[in-house]
This record gives sequence, structure tokens and C-alpha cells, in this order.
Amino acid sequence: MERTELSDLGEFKLIEKLTSKFKTYHPSTVRGVGDDAAVIKNRSGLTVVTTDLLLEGVHFDLSYFPLKHLGYKSVMVNLSDVCAMNGKTEQITVSIALSNRFSLEAVEELYEGIRYACSYAEIDLIGGDTSTSLKGLVISVTAIGTVDEKKITYRKGAKAGDIICVSGDLGAAYTGLQLLEREKQIFIENPDIQPDLENQEHIVGKFLKPDARMDIVKLLAELEIVPTSMIDVSDGLSSDLLHICHHSNVGCKLFESKIPIHGDTYNMALKFQHDPTTCALNGGEDYELLFTIDPAELNKFTEDHNVRAIGEITDKAHGYKLISKSNNEHDLIAQGWQHMNQ
Amino acid sequence: MERTELSDLGEFKLIEKLTSKFKTYHPSTVRGVGDDAAVIKNRSGLTVVTTDLLLEGVHFDLSYFPLKHLGYKSVMVNLSDVCAMNGKTEQITVSIALSNRFSLEAVEELYEGIRYACSYAEIDLIGGDTSTSLKGLVISVTAIGTVDEKKITYRKGAKAGDIICVSGDLGAAYTGLQLLEREKQIFIENPDIQPDLENQEHIVGKFLKPDARMDIVKLLAELEIVPTSMIDVSDGLSSDLLHICHHSNVGCKLFESKIPIHGDTYNMALKFQHDPTTCALNGGEDYELLFTIDPAELNKFTEDHNVRAIGEITDKAHGYKLISKSNNEHDLIAQGWQHMNQ
Repeated sequence: MERTELSDLGEFKLIEKLTSKFKTYHPSTVRGVGDDAAVIKNRSGLTVVTTDLLLEGVHFDLSYFPLKHLGYKSVMVNLSDVCAMNGKTEQITVSIALSNRFSLEAVEELYEGIRYACSYAEIDLIGGDTSTSLKGLVISVTAIGTVDEKKITYRKGAKAGDIICVSGDLGAAYTGLQLLEREKQIFIENPDIQPDLENQEHIVGKFLKPDARMDIVKLLAELEIVPTSMIDVSDGLSSDLLHICHHSNVGCKLFESKIPIHGDTYNMALKFQHDPTTCALNGGEDYELLFTIDPAELNKFTEDHNVRAIGEITDKAHGYKLISKSNNEHDLIAQGWQHMNQ
Repeated sequence: MERTELSDLGEFKLIEKLTSKFKTYHPSTVRGVGDDAAVIKNRSGLTVVTTDLLLEGVHFDLSYFPLKHLGYKSVMVNLSDVCAMNGKTEQITVSIALSNRFSLEAVEELYEGIRYACSYAEIDLIGGDTSTSLKGLVISVTAIGTVDEKKITYRKGAKAGDIICVSGDLGAAYTGLQLLEREKQIFIENPDIQPDLENQEHIVGKFLKPDARMDIVKLLAELEIVPTSMIDVSDGLSSDLLHICHHSNVGCKLFESKIPIHGDTYNMALKFQHDPTTCALNGGEDYELLFTIDPAELNKFTEDHNVRAIGEITDKAHGYKLISKSNNEHDLIAQGWQHMNQ
């Protein structure tokens, strides 16, 4: 493998090398990388802005996270937040800090993943910052999107009687992470054993290469549904549903039997002696969309739509309830990932 | 000193504690902290976006950088970039990552400085991200501003014959940093000796608490001057002037005798056996505005305006020249801070 030291390049040449392959998709992007600030031409409506800061050793482990996937995912998690506002991302900024452990080739891998995400989602990289770190990789992404004033969807807005819906399936990313962590431990103990990830594309893919559900935002527009509230599932279903309830000042009733769990997730959870439902409730990092709709809208969805009704919004006085498969009522508790408590 | 552990709080309570004291100044801020993304109502014109990533040990040294000042400066450096586009910042996002070395009280100090900057510049904190770091403090700020389409000022646009102007004075921040570094070394060698910073408010202040030159952007509007090009002096006068030349495809002639250097900067540079002009040319972190104007506009400035004409733009064929006090011509070379080369 070729190895070019970053110190041989200097900041400006590095930025040029990393960003020159990026295309511009939006006429609203008047000026991207290269001046004191990027310039966007406004149009009517609303702009949404979200940002994430990711640190090696805290948010990702490069021993099993390929740099290309990391670049892709660090963009997608921000796009997912814009989706959760019912918006469409048009621009991103990406800042990175790197120790001298990283070669130019490694950073190019990272940017290849960022570029792949930009190309897939048709978004423009308009700026960022590049510097050294004493140790480890730091990535900060800001996404800027647009939404129609009539379509903006907050966490607040859910009303008693609304149906709780979720896209895709839950718990897969968490189970994929467990698998990668186990294979890492085996590898540390015996480097001759190759990781066994065969037939685990779904759960490993959901963790390493999640897609923001831009297709669901598009579907909602096509079906002329504006959810009464929406959030992306990043902390875990229970924690994120409770966010909607607290912001909307309502209660909820969630049916365990309705929670969509992929067969691979289910089987792997059992192998790890975890309850699959617990993985779906508390796993997090699913980046699916959790939203509430007026019950009259529910029949607009068909089986093909990859959206499931999993519960209903109730008056706050009813509390936050999980109805188990055996029809018992439990309190729903937030036990999602809380990075501050690590 | 009271010490509250961050781990006793959790992420959501911490965010609430840190952001609850912030005011909202702009009606364009529809939704700030608290949802998946912030929401800004668009109006006609352009939006400018800039972002910076700051790492402890690389961009700042907490042994002499008070956290309150650091919070203030990390906002100001982004505001300075928006000023350099001839724009006005309306919103910022701030992301931080902290190791368990930091107490709640320490983080509150940092946010006190951020809040002071927001209050001084009348900008809205609309979002961010808060997480743990394995080591050291990381701060990422994104600033979002507005500019009239007729007033947007890029690095490109300077024409032969234009006058090169700069606000304030140069080299002070660099000299202030040298002084702080020296006092730190003395303190390490003998902790009984208190730092001697007396009468050095100007140079230490320019380093620890720089102000983005929003007053100059306002002045330009009042005088009805739209610069032909503009940049903020962050890398150093020579490096930043060369940026303007390269982007505008022109040459320049800079007069050493015209470069504004504060008396305190001059004297301290000599104490360190540095050439004061070299400090001004290559020091960086001045956060003054460097811009070019049509010569017909020059007489709009008065002595009071804190803006100096320091040279002129030439044809590219003339190269990039520094005319020394003894009237000799030297090539202007970029030797500013390049963090990637550290």
C-alpha cells in the first residue's frame, strides 16, 4: 500500500485533493469550498440545520469500521436528522482532525465514502475545516436542508388517537455492533481466526452503512401525508418515542408484537442471549423514521411501503406503556445509548 | 470550587443547563435547540455558512486560555469568516466533546463565553452536539449568516489598481501568544513566580479575546463601499493577501511602512528579538479584515475609521511584492500558520 504523509502536503493541497472530485447538484449552492464561507442562494420556505461531532474511540472503532463506511455513515446520520424534520438535505460541511497516524490514502478512503453519500443523496459538500489532532480521528458534519413551511414536522404535534408508525426494522444495527465487537475480541485473542460475518449482511450493513430514510420522506410527500410528529431512531425506539411524547405532551401505547424485527436480528439476538425486543427498544442507531399520523391516513400505506403501525398515542394521563406479546402492560423506559454516561 | 460530575447529569440535562440562558434575537430563528434539527425561516438574499473545528493541544492550551475566553473566541473566529463575506451572522451551532476531566462548572464557564459572544453579536445558538472525548476538549462551531446579493464579497474580484486596505493593527495576537508561552515556561520551571502580563492588555487581549470586525462590515455599508475582494487575517497578512491575489488572478505591492502595528506589539516583538514586520506578516490570528477597493472609494475613509491603505493590486505579471521601509522590493512569501505541518 502506498503511503503519502499528510505533512508533505500542507492543508490547502490536502483540501484540494479531497474535495476536487465532488460534484455540485444544487443551483442554490452559489459558492462551495474555497472562500471564507460557503454561499447559498435562499428561496422561500424553511432551512433546517443539524450537526454531529464524532470521535474515534467514543463513536466509532476503526478496528472494524472501514474508513469508507465511516465517511458514508457520518454524512447519513445528519441526513437522517433532516429527514426527521420532513426535509431534504442540499448541502453539508465536513470538518476533520487527524493525527499523523493517518496517511493521505487513508483520508482519501474516508472522503470516498463521504463522496459516495453525497452522490447517492445528491448533496453538495460546501465547506469544512481540516486540522491535526494529537490523537485519533475527529469528524464534524453539518447538514443544511430545505422544507416547505406546510410540511415541517417537529417532535411536538402528536395527538391522542394518532397512530405511531416506524419505517424498516429495528435492533439490527445494535445486533450488528455486538457481532463486530465479538469478532474483534476473538481476533485480539487469536489473530489467526478470520472474522465470521457470513450471511450477516443485514445486521452488519445496518450498523456500518445505514441509509437515511429519504425514500420515506419522498413517500410521505407522494401520499400527501404530513406526520403530526417525527423523529429518527438514533437512541432506540423507547427513548425516541418518549421524546415525541414529552415534546407533544401525550402518552403512548406501544405493541411489542408489532415492532418490526428482521429475522437475522432476531436470531443473532438469541445467539447472544439477548431479548430481540430489548434490542429493538434500546439498541439505537437504526436511523429509521418514527412518526405519528392521523388514523384517517393509515390506509394510504400498503404492505409494500415498509412502514408499520406499532402503537397509538394516548392522553398523557395514561402514561407510556408497552403491551407485551402476552398482553401485559409495562412502563416504557428510556434506556438508549447515552454517550455522556459512558 | 464546587465540582459537579458530568456523568451525574446525562446528555439531555447538560444541554438544557448549558443552553437555557441563551436569548433568541432573530425572528428568522423558528426553532433552536431541542428537535432533530434547527429551523430557520428564509428571506430573500444569500446565506453564508462557515465552520471551524478546534482541538485542545492543537488550537488552544488551557493552561493559559481561560475557558470563558475560549468559548468567546471559538464563536468570534467563525463570525470573522462571515464578516469576510461582507455578511452578518444570525445563527450558530456549537458542538463539544469533553473528557471526564471537565466538571459541569468548567463547561458552564465555556458556555458563559459563548453566551457573551452571542449576546454581544446578537446571534442565536440554534443547535449542536454534546458528547464525551477520551482526552481533551473539542469544539466545533458553525456560523450561518445573511448577505445581500449586491454586497457579497469573495476573495476573488480584486483588480489591478485597487487599493489594499486593512482594519485595526496586525501582529498583536502572535506577540501576545509568544508572551503567554514564555510565562507558561517560567511557571513550569518555577511555579512560585506569577505571570507578568502587566500593561500587555492589547496583545494578550487580541490573542485571548479577539473581536470579529462586524463594525467594519457595518461601516462599509454606511459608506456605501462594496469591497472588490475581502478575507479575514487568520493565517497572517502575507498568506491572506496572497489568497486574494491567487483567487483574483492579480499581483500586489505591499508597503512595509504602511502596515499598522500597535506600539505594544512593536516593543514586545523587539523584546523577543523578532522583527515587528515579520510578526505582522506571518503571525496570524489577527481576525482583522483585509480588503481591496476601487481607488475612487478611498477618500470615504477618515482617520477615525481604523482602516489603513497598505498597498495596491497590480497585474499578475508584476508578482507579489513587499516594498521595504528602505524602498527595496522583496517577494512576498506565505509563511502563516499551517496547522497541518505541525
